[in-house]
Amino acid sequence: MKESRYGMGVDVALPYEQALERTTEELKKEGFGVLTTIDVKQTIKQKLDKDFRKYAILGACNPPIAYQALSAEIEIGLLLPCNVVVYETDPGRSVVAAVAPLVTLGRVGNEALAPLGVEVDAKLRRVMAAVEAGTAGA
Amino acid sequence: MKESRYGMGVDVALPYEQALERTTEELKKEGFGVLTTIDVKQTIKQKLDKDFRKYAILGACNPPIAYQALSAEIEIGLLLPCNVVVYETDPGRSVVAAVAPLVTLGRVGNEALAPLGVEVDAKLRRVMAAVEAGTAGA
Repeated sequence: MKESRYGMGVDVALPYEQALERTTEELKKEGFGVLTTIDVKQTIKQKLDKDFRKYAILGACNPPIAYQALSAEIEIGLLLPCNVVVYETDPGRSVVAAVAPLVTLGRVGNEALAPLGVEVDAKLRRVMAAVEAGTAGA
Repeated sequence: MKESRYGMGVDVALPYEQALERTTEELKKEGFGVLTTIDVKQTIKQKLDKDFRKYAILGACNPPIAYQALSAEIEIGLLLPCNVVVYETDPGRSVVAAVAPLVTLGRVGNEALAPLGVEVDAKLRRVMAAVEAGTAGA
């Protein structure tokens, strides 16, 4: 798994559409529904008439954890849902990445959120690992 | 305007529905479309059968700036769109808050994003100030 300053991701041997489908399925297994989907390629085409690679921004939400977070800190909605992106790197290859909740929640400075950040981080890592594992040897 | 570690917000003498409408209008004046809307109260009711205050998470996107950001850093979609929340504090009073783009983009560590962060920060501050000004004396 690759780590960046604000996310974690995997490079998979799957076409974009399949990567998107697998990501949604694996998120579901960890209790995340996809509340919002932004088709970046389509949005850029419509608004700016420019071409862009296939790219989706999914807003993933685990309702019990989100409820606990909102109950602990009312403005935490500014950092919800957890973004997961899927984009094409080549035909047949995609990257799936998730925002790093420990980084996001770490800067909030509310102790009550710390265990939730740890839980969501573990869940998103399992999602990334499962998406990657499903394409092993492909 | 109130500042937190990850956002900025205003407390306005408007019922939730009007605050939501005014926020959307003022975002539009600064070039932000609302790409996604999460009705938090409704989502919590549906998924958990719990009651929550009126609360919306808006995904605001300024397409030209988002395109520049994505072109400079492909994984920046993890931090897009800019979240703006509107929630009821009392009947007739609401809070409107936006994520602080300088905090969000600051931790990315990509020089090319710095001027975009400054631009979005200024725009969101104008949106907050305009929402607040429109309710002065109310």
